[in-house]
Amino acid sequence: MRTQTSGTAPGFVQANLVILPRTYASDFLTFCLRNPKPCPLLDVTDAGCPEFKQMAPGADIRTDLPLYRIWRDGKLERETERVDDTYENDMVGFALGCSFSWEDVLKDRGLAPRHMLNNTNVPMFRTSVENETAGVFGGRLVVSMRPYKSSEIDDVVAITSSYPGAHGGPVHVGDPSEIGILDVRDPDFGDAVSIEPDDVPVFWACGVTPQLAIESARPHLAITHSPGHMLVCDVLNSELQVNGSDG
Amino acid sequence: MRTQTSGTAPGFVQANLVILPRTYASDFLTFCLRNPKPCPLLDVTDAGCPEFKQMAPGADIRTDLPLYRIWRDGKLERETERVDDTYENDMVGFALGCSFSWEDVLKDRGLAPRHMLNNTNVPMFRTSVENETAGVFGGRLVVSMRPYKSSEIDDVVAITSSYPGAHGGPVHVGDPSEIGILDVRDPDFGDAVSIEPDDVPVFWACGVTPQLAIESARPHLAITHSPGHMLVCDVLNSELQVNGSDG
Repeated sequence: MRTQTSGTAPGFVQANLVILPRTYASDFLTFCLRNPKPCPLLDVTDAGCPEFKQMAPGADIRTDLPLYRIWRDGKLERETERVDDTYENDMVGFALGCSFSWEDVLKDRGLAPRHMLNNTNVPMFRTSVENETAGVFGGRLVVSMRPYKSSEIDDVVAITSSYPGAHGGPVHVGDPSEIGILDVRDPDFGDAVSIEPDDVPVFWACGVTPQLAIESARPHLAITHSPGHMLVCDVLNSELQVNGSDG
Repeated sequence: MRTQTSGTAPGFVQANLVILPRTYASDFLTFCLRNPKPCPLLDVTDAGCPEFKQMAPGADIRTDLPLYRIWRDGKLERETERVDDTYENDMVGFALGCSFSWEDVLKDRGLAPRHMLNNTNVPMFRTSVENETAGVFGGRLVVSMRPYKSSEIDDVVAITSSYPGAHGGPVHVGDPSEIGILDVRDPDFGDAVSIEPDDVPVFWACGVTPQLAIESARPHLAITHSPGHMLVCDVLNSELQVNGSDG
């Protein structure tokens, strides 16, 4: 079913998917380990085995997402509903956490991100922050932004920080120019949200970061989920939470 | 200097070192991620770069440990004081945490492990517990054992659990036979310690585990530290501690 996964299987972890030829796997793994906020690694497949045994046992990563992107030499070639005809037998899959895991928690606490109230995509921005490089993978950090009132920020930081497997706490709070964002009303990806005079913009590391790193690394083949069409896992969001009082 | 590193640079992290050809790197990284208690991954080098940029910037992993082991096809070939003549230009280094990071903390709290009081090596045992496999890496868990009184165990568990980067909390407390250990007075590695009638044996995942995994995976070349001759890092043990009250 070619539908976005937001709202599917409430409470279960949804993850970003990256599939790369084995020759890129150790560099990409290292890139994730060095950049855990944009690339929170939840699971890795064995080379040639299309299954995440911890996060989604029994699911076939070549067919069980609703929509994929196929990249050749770092360029988006096409979107498709299955990749079993494209998948090479030495490929390695990576499941990376996603902010869906805590957005519903924020909402339940009366801290719904503004884009959820608008029913739009979260605004995302390229920053001037360099990622830690690993082999051919590098590039700059991409962030998502959610505006909050000053009085809300402590709670928002505490809640999101308890999900290190889902980007964790903010990477920046306040002045967008400090991380190279010129206009917080004009996102590079996703949709703009209104900003009120007493809003403080809060920025989280974003799963678009590894996709840009793959574009610039230009592997001969890469497969990712299509934005919004995530890997739905068998693990509960609450299982990602650390030090939580309400699991 | 060909001396053991125990007691060197007090307060600084000491780490297990593994160096493997790049072709094994993604499987070994995945093995570490799937088995974080025996293989707590602290840092990874770029392929061909003999430096841990986070844990030991400026140190050359080919020359700056006091004693190395060279393994060919899974067999120990020799020990040597430098490996710059053996290191291949595509090799990847892995720094794995070690229980030294919390043994001094236990000692400072009046909970010194018995082998420290005896000035011997910690007793280590092969278990019946299968590791999670990753490609060619698998095998069984090796544990270290420290006997404690029942009244001490809660504190020992709490302290060591706060160091996930150094094997973390125990993997087993009590009956050794439950993890396949027949005689807790007869270790497979290290030295025996006396066991008193009211002692409870407490078992932690041990850094010998990845060494056995390498033996059975039989890469054409592997380089490790020699036991006790660790990588001394620039990072403090307290920096590894999570949720600590006295970081």
